[in-house]
Amino acid sequence: MRIGVLTSGGDCPGLNAVIRSVVHRGLDVHGDEILGIEDGFRGLIEGRARVVGHDDVTGLLTLGGTILGSARVHREKIDWAVAHAHQLAADLGIDALIAIGGEGTLAAARKFSDAGLPVVGVPKTIDNDIDATDATFGFDTAVHVATEAIDRLKTTAESHQRVLVVELMGRHTGWIALTAGIAGGAHGILIPEKPFDIETVARMIEERFARGKKFAIVAVAEGAVPVPGTMLFDHGGVDQFGHRTFGGIGTRLADELEDLLGKEARPVILGHTQRGGTPTARDRVLATRFGWHAVEAVHQGLFGHFTALRNTEIKLVPVEEAITRLKTVPPELWAECESVL
Amino acid sequence: MRIGVLTSGGDCPGLNAVIRSVVHRGLDVHGDEILGIEDGFRGLIEGRARVVGHDDVTGLLTLGGTILGSARVHREKIDWAVAHAHQLAADLGIDALIAIGGEGTLAAARKFSDAGLPVVGVPKTIDNDIDATDATFGFDTAVHVATEAIDRLKTTAESHQRVLVVELMGRHTGWIALTAGIAGGAHGILIPEKPFDIETVARMIEERFARGKKFAIVAVAEGAVPVPGTMLFDHGGVDQFGHRTFGGIGTRLADELEDLLGKEARPVILGHTQRGGTPTARDRVLATRFGWHAVEAVHQGLFGHFTALRNTEIKLVPVEEAITRLKTVPPELWAECESVL
Amino acid sequence: MRIGVLTSGGDCPGLNAVIRSVVHRGLDVHGDEILGIEDGFRGLIEGRARVVGHDDVTGLLTLGGTILGSARVHREKIDWAVAHAHQLAADLGIDALIAIGGEGTLAAARKFSDAGLPVVGVPKTIDNDIDATDATFGFDTAVHVATEAIDRLKTTAESHQRVLVVELMGRHTGWIALTAGIAGGAHGILIPEKPFDIETVARMIEERFARGKKFAIVAVAEGAVPVPGTMLFDHGGVDQFGHRTFGGIGTRLADELEDLLGKEARPVILGHTQRGGTPTARDRVLATRFGWHAVEAVHQGLFGHFTALRNTEIKLVPVEEAITRLKTVPPELWAECESVL
Amino acid sequence: MRIGVLTSGGDCPGLNAVIRSVVHRGLDVHGDEILGIEDGFRGLIEGRARVVGHDDVTGLLTLGGTILGSARVHREKIDWAVAHAHQLAADLGIDALIAIGGEGTLAAARKFSDAGLPVVGVPKTIDNDIDATDATFGFDTAVHVATEAIDRLKTTAESHQRVLVVELMGRHTGWIALTAGIAGGAHGILIPEKPFDIETVARMIEERFARGKKFAIVAVAEGAVPVPGTMLFDHGGVDQFGHRTFGGIGTRLADELEDLLGKEARPVILGHTQRGGTPTARDRVLATRFGWHAVEAVHQGLFGHFTALRNTEIKLVPVEEAITRLKTVPPELWAECESVL
Repeated sequence: MRIGVLTSGGDCPGLNAVIRSVVHRGLDVHGDEILGIEDGFRGLIEGRARVVGHDDVTGLLTLGGTILGSARVHREKIDWAVAHAHQLAADLGIDALIAIGGEGTLAAARKFSDAGLPVVGVPKTIDNDIDATDATFGFDTAVHVATEAIDRLKTTAESHQRVLVVELMGRHTGWIALTAGIAGGAHGILIPEKPFDIETVARMIEERFARGKKFAIVAVAEGAVPVPGTMLFDHGGVDQFGHRTFGGIGTRLADELEDLLGKEARPVILGHTQRGGTPTARDRVLATRFGWHAVEAVHQGLFGHFTALRNTEIKLVPVEEAITRLKTVPPELWAECESVL
Repeated sequence: MRIGVLTSGGDCPGLNAVIRSVVHRGLDVHGDEILGIEDGFRGLIEGRARVVGHDDVTGLLTLGGTILGSARVHREKIDWAVAHAHQLAADLGIDALIAIGGEGTLAAARKFSDAGLPVVGVPKTIDNDIDATDATFGFDTAVHVATEAIDRLKTTAESHQRVLVVELMGRHTGWIALTAGIAGGAHGILIPEKPFDIETVARMIEERFARGKKFAIVAVAEGAVPVPGTMLFDHGGVDQFGHRTFGGIGTRLADELEDLLGKEARPVILGHTQRGGTPTARDRVLATRFGWHAVEAVHQGLFGHFTALRNTEIKLVPVEEAITRLKTVPPELWAECESVL
Repeated sequence: MRIGVLTSGGDCPGLNAVIRSVVHRGLDVHGDEILGIEDGFRGLIEGRARVVGHDDVTGLLTLGGTILGSARVHREKIDWAVAHAHQLAADLGIDALIAIGGEGTLAAARKFSDAGLPVVGVPKTIDNDIDATDATFGFDTAVHVATEAIDRLKTTAESHQRVLVVELMGRHTGWIALTAGIAGGAHGILIPEKPFDIETVARMIEERFARGKKFAIVAVAEGAVPVPGTMLFDHGGVDQFGHRTFGGIGTRLADELEDLLGKEARPVILGHTQRGGTPTARDRVLATRFGWHAVEAVHQGLFGHFTALRNTEIKLVPVEEAITRLKTVPPELWAECESVL
Repeated sequence: MRIGVLTSGGDCPGLNAVIRSVVHRGLDVHGDEILGIEDGFRGLIEGRARVVGHDDVTGLLTLGGTILGSARVHREKIDWAVAHAHQLAADLGIDALIAIGGEGTLAAARKFSDAGLPVVGVPKTIDNDIDATDATFGFDTAVHVATEAIDRLKTTAESHQRVLVVELMGRHTGWIALTAGIAGGAHGILIPEKPFDIETVARMIEERFARGKKFAIVAVAEGAVPVPGTMLFDHGGVDQFGHRTFGGIGTRLADELEDLLGKEARPVILGHTQRGGTPTARDRVLATRFGWHAVEAVHQGLFGHFTALRNTEIKLVPVEEAITRLKTVPPELWAECESVL
């Protein structure tokens, strides 16, 4: 068979490992030809693609990013592509497509399949918020990077009796902040699922200092929000004079905690370091297995399905299961970790 | 309550994180007193223990090893302890025990509980071979260390057109070798579950070189065995003249591959580096959650149970489930990865 | 002898390794008693100190921060302490002091020595800007952390065709930005020693994209400044309406580059992660050797001197040599690296 | 100019960074053409080479090994090449050669230059034993890898009250063992420069245990030798029955210490992990600067010279200075570190 592969949306450590795995499995086991489509759905629409062979994927297991490039496209563009799916497949001469992407990509997989371009999905989100799979690759790497940062921050915070606020990825869900916060032993963890009260955070830190501890680390997801009406930055990035303000929640939180506590508080913004670079061993294995199973699914005709981790096994599940709801941090898990804070 | 905690058997990154977590949860949530028992069951029998508080567990999240010490004891000793369980509990003044250990420890948990020392188990094995839990802490760290080593070996092997044989932990099961082998992109993976034919390994390497590749990496579990009668080291560490020989399977395999291939082949023995040092973020989280749930299980009276990861949740399962069989690498997973070899 | 030791100023990976080394050398070789003075000169003035022995320094080789605490004090306070040096030494019962600190601390070493409290200095600056020593500990660690971050950023920048601006430590000198920039292969490096023209930076990036490269990384020291009059942030943190603005040079530079280039540009602020955590092997060795030699210097009466790395050897040099001028990046080295930018 | 570049001898992290740097400097600053010669002097003799441009060196800063390949050749082959130097240069059409290699390569640089193939040398040895330069690239990386391993070993050794013997690279000099031993806090360091007495090592370990410490780490260079007549392995790899024995000094030392001490002692052989993989930031910078200066030296006609680090500067020194003697660990440094052992 001639199978297209594309990567869509924000990048994630492990994308290249999936591509490598698809090539290995397709060529060595099934004698397929793999066509790498450039820049996600944009390349599909514009017919930009190249054959990808063994030599092209050498070294990809450890390489972050995606050699195929990725791009975000408007939903209308995807709708247009769905409408022309049959023709696009014919133009590229592909029998099927493996689409590695987020919720939107998975949602489109069924429509493409129905419209004449059979698609198997591979879920990709650094935020780990896709339901129906225990984990997505890239997440473990993000947590690893964030945890290493917290480890480093602890000694410097302690030496100077400071509060450090680490802003971590997670616009809609708090998986990275929660997991890295537990792994790093943060003293406060703020996530989008549970609006926080800055007074409570400040009191927790004060109690900690009162017990003789000399520092505190707060891990905050970029999408964490205060209880309405309790902080300056409720105003949405515009200050009280109507001027544009700089800095995300990490910076604002550090500023306000410093005011409230009368102690030095500093923000650390890890930003894109969380989504770049070499994947962890776990993410490489997950990505590799997703790649194998996606190829197998193509050969078994399981279109409109995507690869999912369930316990220790990879299952193919209908894309509808991924897109009904975001996988948020459940209250039980949140409760689990309150005692260490 | 007054709860004892002990660590038994070989050490594992994450033991200290469990101890820390038990102390946090017990003290902060339930007002318990935690008694740290020294050197595993030996300390239980000899009544060596100390109260462990907040200050004792500061910094333990990232520290490998176990501050309580660990020791291997003969099964008869444990049987003796079971027979005197009630008295031992009384001597230490403990209401319950959290025993962190391997299969043997978990097996004893029910007997102790029946005999008057109520025990909740926390599974510990670097080899990841305990059934009934998706994972054990320490395993991810071992895989991480082994994968980093393979990453480093690849460039030097390639520069010198060499075969490198990396011997990894795993006496009875091949989880570390398999997982690190996939994550590191090893070209051959040899595990105890599937006796290997050295001729097949040699042929695979030759085909690889014939395709223009200039090196090969073989990951071998220390417990991997050849098909009977095919290698020198079948003789079990004694050479054909009856003299003691040095070196494990990694060394022997490299020697024989060098002979068979006429190419330089070198062994690398990572040894104890795989079980020491700072746990990965994932292992810290797993260990921390095991600790929380063990304390909860004590308070709920779930004795003779142990903490297990199921998907993304921690469940308490009867210890009988852990000890019926070793969790070996299933043939399906083995088959999954053949195409990358 | 009874020797005091204190750490002053901002913390640095390796401070604890110096303390450990002083204790080992002092106790094992000379039979000294080591008195750890808390919170730098503040503890000296307030007479807060404790004896530090072997057990207190176990594990310190790898631990960031300082177990003695550190604090910044006003120069007048130090002047006061100098005036009362003899009495302070008598109160603590110390024969000599090893003061680990920056330029200010070293400068005071001579004055204290003259006033009756004999001091040997150990230079400490993460910025590597103390003249008269080839290197200071902590710097290599900061460069290591920054380089790892740049490594990670490259793949994500490339996948998304972005410009990433990494803000690194260095208020007065550009050593960290220059060294990490070279090590990470940054495409632009902006340091305080050479005011930059943002148009030139933008043009360099455009030329890079024109050559088919899909991303660019700019490493900028926090103290880098634009050629006067060329950027918004010349206004010193206050916007054109007179309101306080947030964000340092990294954020501002990314904002303005995005405007100039019409491409996504994002800042990454590594902040305190650069000065925390486990020191690199090199920094541990340097710190350990500084500690040994400081103790030897005390016993040889080389007061008013500080430990310095010269080639591969540790020398004791008069503190006057350290404080005459800041060690800035020389134009030759700047020229050396222009071709890779 | 048309400049050849080759890498000779054992590989070292940083070789690729030199190649990249030569290409950048040569092309961008001088408009040179760079010819990459394959497999060291073997490729020079056989005329195997290819032009290397910007695209070929993308990503090389972080890549271990050498994209040009390396090989060891007999000295007679090099002598033959020297005799035909003029012709070889003409065949490849090169005006000069940058030869990256060890002592032998540097020694040949003068002869080639005299014979009509002008050569600038770049020193390469993971062992750091080339005189006349403060450091060589690859060494810092080897020390980093070895130190990380010792860090990991400490916790597992302590948990099990074991002695661990870590065998590190260094056939003729002990720089890696000494430096990683200090950085890792090893309790014994054995190097080729100073024959060791196993009884003394055993006594040191016993005293340590007597002081209540529960483990010991011994770092041993592969070339360390016992005082003659004191150990089994004096017999040179053949046991007392005349049969070939396996295992290097690490294995033998662990075996004998276990016998002497009556405690578990285990060897860890890091092997090629020390010379593979991504270079540290410091090694990348050193390699990059060596590359720049080598190109400059070619344009200045400094043939028969090699690049050397002196303090913080790169100097070009006559190759004769490198080959008069091996840089061994000086007794003063050895004495420096005795107190921590």
